[in-house]
Amino acid sequence: MALVSEAPIELTTFGWVPPFARGQVRDLRVRWALEEAGLDYGVRTVGPIPSGYEREQPFCQVPAYREGELQLFESGAIVQHIGERDERLLPREPVARARAVQWTYAALSSVEPFVMAYAGLDAFYPGEEWAKLRRPSAKEELAKRLGRVAEWLGSAEWLEGDRFTIGDLMMVSILRIMGDEGGPVANHPALAAYRARGLARPAFQRALADQLALYADKPKGEAA
Amino acid sequence: MALVSEAPIELTTFGWVPPFARGQVRDLRVRWALEEAGLDYGVRTVGPIPSGYEREQPFCQVPAYREGELQLFESGAIVQHIGERDERLLPREPVARARAVQWTYAALSSVEPFVMAYAGLDAFYPGEEWAKLRRPSAKEELAKRLGRVAEWLGSAEWLEGDRFTIGDLMMVSILRIMGDEGGPVANHPALAAYRARGLARPAFQRALADQLALYADKPKGEAA
Repeated sequence: MALVSEAPIELTTFGWVPPFARGQVRDLRVRWALEEAGLDYGVRTVGPIPSGYEREQPFCQVPAYREGELQLFESGAIVQHIGERDERLLPREPVARARAVQWTYAALSSVEPFVMAYAGLDAFYPGEEWAKLRRPSAKEELAKRLGRVAEWLGSAEWLEGDRFTIGDLMMVSILRIMGDEGGPVANHPALAAYRARGLARPAFQRALADQLALYADKPKGEAA
Repeated sequence: MALVSEAPIELTTFGWVPPFARGQVRDLRVRWALEEAGLDYGVRTVGPIPSGYEREQPFCQVPAYREGELQLFESGAIVQHIGERDERLLPREPVARARAVQWTYAALSSVEPFVMAYAGLDAFYPGEEWAKLRRPSAKEELAKRLGRVAEWLGSAEWLEGDRFTIGDLMMVSILRIMGDEGGPVANHPALAAYRARGLARPAFQRALADQLALYADKPKGEAA
């Protein structure tokens, strides 16, 4: 990474998050795409949210992204934009391109809400009675979705065959929200292997290390 | 619409849905985009799900889309693809284009899950105890999200100013999932007006009429 002041690309993320979120902040998806594409970038941290930030990120979340005149939020849109710059992530051929974009949307819209409806119960509603009652149906709905993805994949390496795209980057990122051992993904060996293939990519490993390094010296219990 | 056999574009949807879903099936978003772009299309209905359909739509849902060699599922991806064919929906200028795509993702990923977490309680979990207990927090979380969109919009006509894009098409479609009177959208007059502007577009009205016509002669209580 370059110093922010020299960077053509600036990625905004939180300067502090609680320990459970470290390694799960959504700038990770963007870092991964940038690492795959070999693009240089700088990191700006925010927290507390600065005045006016809602014009960069209307939901006052992260990531936010700046590249010259272009300001973007929403991890899917940023990852797609990075893909536009590198055909190794987003093929130029129209059918292959549309299919890769399709899987990016599918990961975010047809899989992630089910992951969050289940994994979010513990993270965001610990001790809530409704969350306890909701757990069995949320788990079942998620299992069904993941079964569909596993069935689609079959023995393929990636969602569209032998070529890794932004769709895989997003799907693997979302499958990774859940823990590894005996969880809903592990019930499908082909899906677990797919996720492991994605996470083994050097670009992902660099992205993860960079996100974790940001929080390595931060206190666990309070905002810095 | 052309006959299916003559159509360059084929849109797949369900041949029967229960009355509460009529006018809300997600092929509506695709119909709307096709009408805005003035593209001819044919409709294929399925139900029960035909053998092999999971290779067209891995989650066995609708819409599915076919255009020559291109097969797509996922409403966001299909709408974006239609946008690629018509710069009135998806500007060609790179910054404006990326921003329009961004709002399409934002509608699906940052707004729709909150809409469904609230509106889905009645639709999918009537009588469930957890759904009753969940309602207040789901309503509050949704209200907060919608407040952010309303704040972003301010007095602007569309999300990016004076130009309607696929981002507006998707956001308005998602805001429309909720009822009209005294609901979470109506609490924000600017947002309600924005939604009304979108729904007043002739292309939306044609799309809605076409979807409703499909179910007009279908029984209410059972699959045809």
